[in-house]
Amino acid sequence: MTVPAQIDLARQLASRLERLSVDSVWAHRASGVRGALLRWLDNQAGNTTPTDDELEQLERLVSRAFEILTRAAREIRETKMSEQAIQDYYPDNVSYCYGCGRLNEKGLQIKSYWAGDEAVCIYQPRPEHIAIPGYVYGGLIASLIDCHCTGAAAAASYQAAGRPMDSLPAFRYVTASLKVDYLKPTPLGVPLELRARVVEIKGRKVVLQATLAAEGEIRARGEVVTVQAPPEMFGE
Amino acid sequence: MTVPAQIDLARQLASRLERLSVDSVWAHRASGVRGALLRWLDNQAGNTTPTDDELEQLERLVSRAFEILTRAAREIRETKMSEQAIQDYYPDNVSYCYGCGRLNEKGLQIKSYWAGDEAVCIYQPRPEHIAIPGYVYGGLIASLIDCHCTGAAAAASYQAAGRPMDSLPAFRYVTASLKVDYLKPTPLGVPLELRARVVEIKGRKVVLQATLAAEGEIRARGEVVTVQAPPEMFGE
Repeated sequence: MTVPAQIDLARQLASRLERLSVDSVWAHRASGVRGALLRWLDNQAGNTTPTDDELEQLERLVSRAFEILTRAAREIRETKMSEQAIQDYYPDNVSYCYGCGRLNEKGLQIKSYWAGDEAVCIYQPRPEHIAIPGYVYGGLIASLIDCHCTGAAAAASYQAAGRPMDSLPAFRYVTASLKVDYLKPTPLGVPLELRARVVEIKGRKVVLQATLAAEGEIRARGEVVTVQAPPEMFGE
Repeated sequence: MTVPAQIDLARQLASRLERLSVDSVWAHRASGVRGALLRWLDNQAGNTTPTDDELEQLERLVSRAFEILTRAAREIRETKMSEQAIQDYYPDNVSYCYGCGRLNEKGLQIKSYWAGDEAVCIYQPRPEHIAIPGYVYGGLIASLIDCHCTGAAAAASYQAAGRPMDSLPAFRYVTASLKVDYLKPTPLGVPLELRARVVEIKGRKVVLQATLAAEGEIRARGEVVTVQAPPEMFGE
């Protein structure tokens, strides 16, 4: 990242940290990191060539800011949903998916929670998930909608069958088609909130609609057609 | 990755390596690594608990196999296309995109080549780009189609204007909507070939269709609506 881009990111993070609710247990730490970021920016005012030491300090502050925002996002989730994530019911052999597998160390490891009639997922993009500076990469948005919807399709099926999510035979869905409308740019540095619900069931096919919001505004809408996969496809 | 999944990947890679054309300058090295993989598998026949040393040796062979397949894919591309990649004409400030920015160290760094009436991109997924074992993650496929099409829209616009790709004012496109139909599973471990062409131009909107093939078969189709972005969005 260029120095001006790093400085721009630091400014944005300072502003996101400010918006953390005072009720959050992270509010105090957020305020500390925000202060440090603002001091760094003040010291650099007008200076476009920070030293290596100064850049290293900035990187530490940026990492810390992302960590606080991620943890605060988890906290939001935990106050709303109490159950285990849908993906945490998947057995090991189907848990390597880049988007939602808890065993894929380099993957996104999204967690979707079923809330009776919709699935909710909070995801904090990584700094590299950038499109143009300041905004989230559209391919990431498509990936999140995809995995969140296949998880929601499974959860809805278990609910319709009146069975717990770890009961057999398992409901596993694969994506037949994915459509994403990008309504407005999605800011990078804040948690994203995904919601998905089933809109149609036709035999083995489940159609879902999803929204992706940031800072309370819907940024993208998705429609996903999932198909129930035969158990042998998953080695089950 | 579990040991059975690693062994399965090793088997698949051995089979992909075998299919490298004898014309390829990589054929000899592919054959060597394939032999080593097969010997490793033979030695392990029936043994489900390899030692740490044996697993380390397997990991080295798998990395080497991926490297050879990636380089061989580049070679295929280079014999067909001679120009610079479309993304290599993007200036630094728009080169951080996770999908196509050459300056995003953690990104996919796809390279699309313009071939007069369509854009072509060869991409070798990483081992972590997995859906279920042996197959490519659908979110990656959506990401590749997205970035490849915005690049193709730009290249087509420069061509229509009769201008070189590094001339100003720049043509930059963002995605308004992305639709992907997953026709059949995409095997992991082989290079993917993407092709995209413009099907409609309406004012600032350019609609493209794309295909993604593996082993000579089309696995997914995409339709992408891109919109020409105002230069100030890109700081230009």
